[in-house]
Amino acid sequence: MGIPVDKSQKSRPHIVIIGAGFAGLAAARALAGAPVRVTVVDRRNHHLFQPLLYQVATAALSAPDIAAPIRKLLSGNKNTQVLLAEATRVDVAGRTLHLKDGEAIPYDYLLLAAGAGSSYFGNDHWAEHAPGLKSLDDALEIRRRVLLAYEHAEQEEHVHRRTAWLTFVVVGAGPTGAEMAGALAEIARHTLARDFRSIDPTLARVVLVEGGPRVLSTFDASLSADAQAQLEKLGVEVRLNTFVTDLDGDGVTLGDEHIPAKTVVWAAGVKASPLTATLGAPLDRAGRVKVGPDLSIPDRPEVFALGDLAAAAQADGCLVPGVAQGAIQGGRHAARCILADMTGKPRETFRYSDKGSMATIGRSKAIAEVGAVKISGTLAWLLWLFVHVMALVGFRNRVIVLMEWAWAYVSWQRSARVILTEPAPTPPAP
Amino acid sequence: MGIPVDKSQKSRPHIVIIGAGFAGLAAARALAGAPVRVTVVDRRNHHLFQPLLYQVATAALSAPDIAAPIRKLLSGNKNTQVLLAEATRVDVAGRTLHLKDGEAIPYDYLLLAAGAGSSYFGNDHWAEHAPGLKSLDDALEIRRRVLLAYEHAEQEEHVHRRTAWLTFVVVGAGPTGAEMAGALAEIARHTLARDFRSIDPTLARVVLVEGGPRVLSTFDASLSADAQAQLEKLGVEVRLNTFVTDLDGDGVTLGDEHIPAKTVVWAAGVKASPLTATLGAPLDRAGRVKVGPDLSIPDRPEVFALGDLAAAAQADGCLVPGVAQGAIQGGRHAARCILADMTGKPRETFRYSDKGSMATIGRSKAIAEVGAVKISGTLAWLLWLFVHVMALVGFRNRVIVLMEWAWAYVSWQRSARVILTEPAPTPPAP
Repeated sequence: MGIPVDKSQKSRPHIVIIGAGFAGLAAARALAGAPVRVTVVDRRNHHLFQPLLYQVATAALSAPDIAAPIRKLLSGNKNTQVLLAEATRVDVAGRTLHLKDGEAIPYDYLLLAAGAGSSYFGNDHWAEHAPGLKSLDDALEIRRRVLLAYEHAEQEEHVHRRTAWLTFVVVGAGPTGAEMAGALAEIARHTLARDFRSIDPTLARVVLVEGGPRVLSTFDASLSADAQAQLEKLGVEVRLNTFVTDLDGDGVTLGDEHIPAKTVVWAAGVKASPLTATLGAPLDRAGRVKVGPDLSIPDRPEVFALGDLAAAAQADGCLVPGVAQGAIQGGRHAARCILADMTGKPRETFRYSDKGSMATIGRSKAIAEVGAVKISGTLAWLLWLFVHVMALVGFRNRVIVLMEWAWAYVSWQRSARVILTEPAPTPPAP
Repeated sequence: MGIPVDKSQKSRPHIVIIGAGFAGLAAARALAGAPVRVTVVDRRNHHLFQPLLYQVATAALSAPDIAAPIRKLLSGNKNTQVLLAEATRVDVAGRTLHLKDGEAIPYDYLLLAAGAGSSYFGNDHWAEHAPGLKSLDDALEIRRRVLLAYEHAEQEEHVHRRTAWLTFVVVGAGPTGAEMAGALAEIARHTLARDFRSIDPTLARVVLVEGGPRVLSTFDASLSADAQAQLEKLGVEVRLNTFVTDLDGDGVTLGDEHIPAKTVVWAAGVKASPLTATLGAPLDRAGRVKVGPDLSIPDRPEVFALGDLAAAAQADGCLVPGVAQGAIQGGRHAARCILADMTGKPRETFRYSDKGSMATIGRSKAIAEVGAVKISGTLAWLLWLFVHVMALVGFRNRVIVLMEWAWAYVSWQRSARVILTEPAPTPPAP
């Protein structure tokens, strides 16, 4: 077992990129054709269009609709090798990346772009009962739980237990939480409305719990209010200034209140990949690497931290937001720094260009903020739809995703209502 | 926990259908609007378009493309209840179906249509190394193994082990085996051709092993020869009159010969659902129920066995073939028998109407036999494509599937090249 190296490229600087998310992929693409040797290490075989992951979790899209093989995306980059492997540790002093299978890869430059996972704020045992939404496997697990909850409810004679199966709690009202809550309400009110005999899915309860004073708090306050109104119009109960104090397989405790709920989705916090801890660089509370103005780590100009696992301060002191654009621009910047080094030019300071942000709640319901322009409702939703479809990687995904949505719009249906693995429901607890 | 019953329908005859495959779904649909009460029991939430399952296994289609929620398909049948549950035993004397969760469902009529699984002819320990292709989970597992095999090969320095990763063996040259082998060859020669740096996927070896004297033996001998030529043109090694004598994680033994191969797919034999053994009816060697001319079991006119788990003799002594049309026609026939009973009319004898059969090898490669008409090549392939797209359940699937195929045809790509679960490869054995 070994890492294959093209002999003709062996003398070139070796750039190792960990993670083929938005940041890693952008960096690899920016290095195409450059006189370097690139190795992209990822523990999954696919790049994931994460902004639409909740659509897989809520059965509107199939897993492959929002994913593309990394190998395929980079097959035109002749200087790039893709390695399906799990990185475990960076030896910064030895300039070597260690893999789970025992291999060690020496590097001249390292771009750490392994992303972030869910944070349960010290309550990791909650994870089992409230999965986060970070990977396709997560999304399929949440889809399975949501669809099975209705099947359990249909077979449950006891009203209290039936109510718990028909109660869905989403923790955290950032973009993922708000989108999940909206989609869960649409499933209950429309998609499943006529498919059951014993239960009325439209009576299902969707609760969105947020510790802060408003939903989608990175947006302007007026848009947060619009989004909350849109969520409530869909039937979502929005609970602000509320913290989860306990959580198990039977429900969620919010201070003095217990909500019996069999299905809980966690969208409350993220923590950086544990790889960041092996860099010996300063980290913030979420485990993110505090990077310098060029996105490299202190005293190690050959090591960059990018995307969700980096804490990059902008000129105004605010951090570059953990969104796709921040990651893409960061990845390109790191590539430019490397090329500058190689030609003896000085590195530039990274400047994040805010192209605006948007979040969707459901059909014809969204908010968008582009500079001073703030819009909500159908126009924002169409803008959201257009931007996300156009941004999807690869021609194929664009067309198929658009078709799926067009059909979903006409029919109120979700076409991916398929439960994979563990087909038969376990009997409800007595 | 209990089985919900609409009170207004409680006095109607209760028809229990086990399995919502082609037979069960056709029966349920034929009973829509009849003065009966229908319960459809399935351990999965989806009806599966099994003829295209190999396309999911070979990453051309996503799982939801060929599946539709049973509940949705039958939501218009107001007399029908869908139950996600696993049947374990039929108490024929007590006219009761027992479920895994302990529930018992009394019936007036029982339609057993639970399908068949893979048979390893007494070598069940082979299953782990050579999965069959019966469910979406099977298909995703095979897809995972096929895609990971190339990833392993890319990282493998030892030529013998690399060869084993690049060797794919399909056991059984019926429609599923022939289609799998053709698709595996296309993946190697076209889809992956340019995506790797260390290996040349076009050198991958695909071996199709068949115990009988020809491939696709249910077709006319001239078409079998055509299909074999098409397979060989794609680079598939066809080994006829050859039996697997042993099989493990390292390869396949064919008598005196050992083929090192890490990826083996089993398409050699089927055995009926184990539920058939609880009927107390005569079974054939494959566990199929020997049914009477009306498809009911001996002395139990209220119990029908349908589809792949039934052995139904036609007038000429041949069995109704285990294809979708046989299952659909059987399901409808059982429904007609029940309605005849209720109106005091005699039951008719089931007559299978052969609408022809076809099998595909790959792009522009297929064979079709409709009565005396035998065609092969592009025309047969277009016919196959048309028939299968049109037959897919539900409008949505038709359009999306056609789009996927159109795109695959133009690009030689397979859009579902996504490995789900167990992302990082285990290191090759030393």
